Amino acid sequence: MDYARFFQDAVDTLRNERRYRTFAEIERDTARFPHAVWHSPQGERDIVIWCSNDYLGMGCHASVVEAMCETARQAGAGAGGTRNISGNSHAIVALESELADLHGKDAALVFTSGYVSNQTGIATLARLIPDCVILSDALNHNSMIEGVRQAGRDKKVFRHNDLAHLEELLREAGDRPKLIVFESVYSMDGDVAPIGAICDLAERYGAMTYLDEVHAVGMYGPRGAGVAERDGVMHRVDVIEGTLGKAFGVVGGYIAGKRAVMDAVRSYAPGFIFTTALPPAVAAAAAASVRHLKASAAERTRQQAQVAKVKRALDLAGLPQIVTQTHIVPVMVGDAEACKAASDMLLAEHGIYIQPINYPTVPRGTERLRITPGPFHDDALVAQLAAALSDVWSRLGLPFVTRAQAAE
Amino acid sequence: MDYARFFQDAVDTLRNERRYRTFAEIERDTARFPHAVWHSPQGERDIVIWCSNDYLGMGCHASVVEAMCETARQAGAGAGGTRNISGNSHAIVALESELADLHGKDAALVFTSGYVSNQTGIATLARLIPDCVILSDALNHNSMIEGVRQAGRDKKVFRHNDLAHLEELLREAGDRPKLIVFESVYSMDGDVAPIGAICDLAERYGAMTYLDEVHAVGMYGPRGAGVAERDGVMHRVDVIEGTLGKAFGVVGGYIAGKRAVMDAVRSYAPGFIFTTALPPAVAAAAAASVRHLKASAAERTRQQAQVAKVKRALDLAGLPQIVTQTHIVPVMVGDAEACKAASDMLLAEHGIYIQPINYPTVPRGTERLRITPGPFHDDALVAQLAAALSDVWSRLGLPFVTRAQAAE
Ligand SMILES: Cc1ncc(COP(=O)(O)O)c(C=O)c1O
Ligand SMILES: Cc1ncc(COP(=O)(O)O)c(C=O)c1O
Repeated sequence: MDYARFFQDAVDTLRNERRYRTFAEIERDTARFPHAVWHSPQGERDIVIWCSNDYLGMGCHASVVEAMCETARQAGAGAGGTRNISGNSHAIVALESELADLHGKDAALVFTSGYVSNQTGIATLARLIPDCVILSDALNHNSMIEGVRQAGRDKKVFRHNDLAHLEELLREAGDRPKLIVFESVYSMDGDVAPIGAICDLAERYGAMTYLDEVHAVGMYGPRGAGVAERDGVMHRVDVIEGTLGKAFGVVGGYIAGKRAVMDAVRSYAPGFIFTTALPPAVAAAAAASVRHLKASAAERTRQQAQVAKVKRALDLAGLPQIVTQTHIVPVMVGDAEACKAASDMLLAEHGIYIQPINYPTVPRGTERLRITPGPFHDDALVAQLAAALSDVWSRLGLPFVTRAQAAE
Repeated sequence: MDYARFFQDAVDTLRNERRYRTFAEIERDTARFPHAVWHSPQGERDIVIWCSNDYLGMGCHASVVEAMCETARQAGAGAGGTRNISGNSHAIVALESELADLHGKDAALVFTSGYVSNQTGIATLARLIPDCVILSDALNHNSMIEGVRQAGRDKKVFRHNDLAHLEELLREAGDRPKLIVFESVYSMDGDVAPIGAICDLAERYGAMTYLDEVHAVGMYGPRGAGVAERDGVMHRVDVIEGTLGKAFGVVGGYIAGKRAVMDAVRSYAPGFIFTTALPPAVAAAAAASVRHLKASAAERTRQQAQVAKVKRALDLAGLPQIVTQTHIVPVMVGDAEACKAASDMLLAEHGIYIQPINYPTVPRGTERLRITPGPFHDDALVAQLAAALSDVWSRLGLPFVTRAQAAE
């Protein structure tokens, strides 16, 4: 049996469909973020990262880096065990308190990633609720879809952010227990869920709510707890899930909620129980980041300012962006090959790194460059970005839009 | 609908069955490992950890800790993105080369944990092999079971390490493609799979092999590549999976194998694609550890020596250990409450930390204290351990064995 053949075929399929992904090898530099070194096939090149999910540059913040180093020197590079078997470090316990406080909840539970939080968290919650129906937004992230699947419960998918459809499905579910699973900021389109209105429906129909704030924590709300905090509805959401790997700049994920809920997930979730805990050094770095962003709005304010400048510059240049209310700036290409070509040209000729976003991350025909301006992209970099995109758009013959169209 | 009630009930069930877990809060200390601080309800207490999976103390090794700090200061505390979107750091690429070299394979792929490696790795491999039958050892770890389940393929479970049963199932599967999934060192009993004989069967019946070496990497074989290396059969195993969180002392997981196989998993595995990459600082620390243990056998030799001393001391004291060929020393209690009581007494009165291992980690009736002696447990600590266990055994009225029984 030629097993290698099966895998070669699978890879060839991707190549034929122009979906084969090449990862750019990047060396970040805390002293110069978002400038970095690209290890290109032709050698090292200086570039500017415009697609990082270290949205606020906190991964390069001295207080975060130093917390990691100090704790590594004190407590070591790893936890040395699962949470139950010798891996329950002082640092991870402190991080969970920090996160519970951030979201105004009784307790929080840390996982190895946001992915695992969603996958094992949703699956475990839904399994512990007898006869549960899961109502899931159509554009939920893969980690939530896998969690819903793993739950093995009845699942109803509501049209993206469609309150009428959600209500219809809630009504259909009758008296059964219900879990609504959704995101606040959808990362590829940059649009935002009507969290308060979803909570209204949840109350009216007796549903529990699970909200992924992965692309919002650190960035929205007075203390950076996310969109639910900004909208004043955080206390109405039952379980809030977040990541430590994006705006908080480190790695790991978590959920926060009522004590009994957290205790049940802690006790039953296989993806929490049977795995080595996050290193204390990672937990300490994440806690330092959360703590900093609770107290400081400077990063958020500056991010919003630079995001607005990028949107305006692209608008003036006639580049086809999706208009968003968030820090995410998708510039549409609509073709996998053109999207890759634009990205390659930006990197090779302008030293601008924006990874192409193709299927399956977004639907075919909606391929895009996803730009994430942050507080460290200064005005000169913004101007350079707009000029580089215009140049690439012209040379590849990609369509420009008029300002009237763009404003729609 | 009172959702909190469902979760409270689930937790109460565990309490009633005496399965509710309390995590001891531990603060490790690199300068004094395996000595540590226990944050007990009564305040800080000095303890000795005897149940760490940082088997060789590499998490406290200066070269590992300094690699973490240096890279954190250089490249930041996080990767800033998924592998595809700006998170493919120079450090993680270098780590993958190091791991491929360790196992003598074309390529390796790093995941956020060993758990995720197994779950998404096995699921993806099995889905990419048309009509695949998975043959899975009955005692496989939860992460492998979840991977098998997620694959959605036909599954046959063979009795633990039972070659005759495995052969029977292979024969039954006829011409269909087959994937054999098993471990080298089983972590709770400390026994070892007949890897070479399983490879013989795989060749005879045309099956692909997937071997979890999580509890062996770093510790067996001339370069610490695991039991397959020690047994001279590493080149015969198709995919080797390992963790960076146990003997390597950090966090993360990986698989290694043929280039096409790694490329296919890289391209199709949701748990690899849709998650933030491990921080460069973590990758650099892990690479330093792997590199160190490739070149140095001192830690392995000293571990084996101290393990032998512990086994001999427990034997002399008449404590009921499972006789193993490995570094894992299970001392049997056979009752959840007694096991917890023994652990509590060891910690509170002797400053010895050995977490009780109860259901569901091991079958009911086989509850145990699982001891993992390492190179840093010196002879005085070994003597103290045996004396403390004897004291606890006497006071709790737990059964001793004669030396003849113990040798069985
Ligand atoms: C909406 C959403 N949820 C969860 C995750 C997973 O979080 P993490 O990267 O911490 O695994 C991601 C992306 O990675 C995401 O976009
Ligand atoms: C056999 C086995 N495989 C995989 C894992 C998971 O590895 P990790 O701790 O890196 O998630 C474990 C334990 O944690 C294990 O015992």
